[in-house]
Amino acid sequence: MTPNQLADALHRQFEQTPYGQSPAELYDPIRYIMSLGGKRMRPLMTLLAASLFTDDWQKALKPAVAVEVFHNFTLLHDDIMDQAPLRRGQPTVHEKWNANIAILSGDVMLVKAYEQLLDIEPTYLRQVLTRFSKTAAEVCEGQQMDMNFESLDTVSEAEYIDMIRLKTSVLLGFAMEVGGIVAGADPVSTQCLYDAGVNIGIGFQLKDDLLDVYGDPAKFGKQVGGDIIANKKTFLLIEALERANGQVRLELLNWLTQSEFDKAEKVDAITSIYDQLGIRELAEARIADYFAKGFANLEHITADPARKDVLLTFAHQLVERES
Amino acid sequence: MTPNQLADALHRQFEQTPYGQSPAELYDPIRYIMSLGGKRMRPLMTLLAASLFTDDWQKALKPAVAVEVFHNFTLLHDDIMDQAPLRRGQPTVHEKWNANIAILSGDVMLVKAYEQLLDIEPTYLRQVLTRFSKTAAEVCEGQQMDMNFESLDTVSEAEYIDMIRLKTSVLLGFAMEVGGIVAGADPVSTQCLYDAGVNIGIGFQLKDDLLDVYGDPAKFGKQVGGDIIANKKTFLLIEALERANGQVRLELLNWLTQSEFDKAEKVDAITSIYDQLGIRELAEARIADYFAKGFANLEHITADPARKDVLLTFAHQLVERES
Repeated sequence: MTPNQLADALHRQFEQTPYGQSPAELYDPIRYIMSLGGKRMRPLMTLLAASLFTDDWQKALKPAVAVEVFHNFTLLHDDIMDQAPLRRGQPTVHEKWNANIAILSGDVMLVKAYEQLLDIEPTYLRQVLTRFSKTAAEVCEGQQMDMNFESLDTVSEAEYIDMIRLKTSVLLGFAMEVGGIVAGADPVSTQCLYDAGVNIGIGFQLKDDLLDVYGDPAKFGKQVGGDIIANKKTFLLIEALERANGQVRLELLNWLTQSEFDKAEKVDAITSIYDQLGIRELAEARIADYFAKGFANLEHITADPARKDVLLTFAHQLVERES
Repeated sequence: MTPNQLADALHRQFEQTPYGQSPAELYDPIRYIMSLGGKRMRPLMTLLAASLFTDDWQKALKPAVAVEVFHNFTLLHDDIMDQAPLRRGQPTVHEKWNANIAILSGDVMLVKAYEQLLDIEPTYLRQVLTRFSKTAAEVCEGQQMDMNFESLDTVSEAEYIDMIRLKTSVLLGFAMEVGGIVAGADPVSTQCLYDAGVNIGIGFQLKDDLLDVYGDPAKFGKQVGGDIIANKKTFLLIEALERANGQVRLELLNWLTQSEFDKAEKVDAITSIYDQLGIRELAEARIADYFAKGFANLEHITADPARKDVLLTFAHQLVERES
């Protein structure tokens, strides 16, 4: 199966998934946030992982939906916590309805994610639910760490990598792992799929941090420099704070503590500091490292070479994205 | 086993249950809300239900904890939605920490409730998780209906009963059912346990509505008349609005639309309207009906009579509570 064929099957599966009807205030927000789209990269990786080991990749469809529903549940609740007005260019659930409805429809989405996993073959059910629950708790841990970082003066690179591993990467790891499990993969290959997902996921998040500053405005979906304007503790800022000395450090701290400033001027100034400190090259090297680790994990998997090629080709396209 | 012995075992189980450690802001609120106590009626009913069918009631301990953790998760999130300052006389989680921490630690509590169910024997795992997920979604539906009722002019008795069935009773139903399932009960008995829990649960909620007005202030844990002061659409108010005519109706509507009033005067006046309309007797009759249905469900269960007596005696004590 080609990635496009799997994406079509996934699209049909999402359209057929019933989330619930009444009361409408509880279930409409689920359909709304699921309809906003997104790249659906995680569930597609679930199907690609399953396709490595079986022609019956359809058995991974519901687990793939579970991953995407869970991901959207976290977006829904994170948007309340961040008081974000927009998600994918549309009003967030707490803006379109209200915060109480957003809390409660998020809660029921988490239940619906679990429900999508219950048709898994009994042999794999406990294993998958144990792994999913651990992943879900870790994603919450990562979100809490991210919130904690906002009020810290300094965050180390190791702490930052640990936070993004939990908040964003373990879910890609689980997405790939569960595809392998339900397809009957051997334990070593299953572990490799998980590790690959985590490493590629960390690479993605670091690339997101990089594109915020160095992305092509025509390709990058968000405002370039948004993280800089908001003083967001990204990989770039954390490294800059660790490396900057003397006058450069004073200039950086000065920008970070200004409450009124010209946005374009701040973005230019901090980008220039990053340039002087070699932060771009450092980030690019780290991203390349994590992607390389992820691909090494994939190489380790015992599966038909032609099938592996489909996954590897797709993963290479993914990591080269500019948005 | 006596109910006291089971309650002791349950207490030890709660003390041994690990909820997680780091970050502390995520997991401390779970230990905090679990430490506030409460009657722990639901998990005790899980153990009593299991004891009907097996000496190995210990296998129901983790499912019992799952029920209580889930119940406390709903309290935690409901308190945010209701902006409640106190829970069991102590600051609510969103007051003691903040709303974001309350949302996120609630989310992880729901995951932890599922985790407590994963050690169930594989034969019963899918059944229990399917029933738990359905119950969890229904509790959210009931909470949403309750919020919707606040902005409605009229609510029918049937709509009200349906709301409390979902918001509070199905969880007692599941608590008893899961005890039966893991103890290997036959499907008819399992269904009877569920139905008994739902019926007794509805009776409890109606009794709560009644005690708010007619409870002994020395025994009732909350402020008598609190629902009246807040215009809460309880069974009593819904019935009064359905029955009041002429001058009595005008007086009732007048009290409901006053924005400034003497609290004691309002409680006295509306209680007097309830008295005139026979609302107390009506509520008592409905409560007796639901309890009777619940006990009839219990009678239907196929189990050793001596063991059934333990459950029936305990349930009789519960339904006669005054707080």
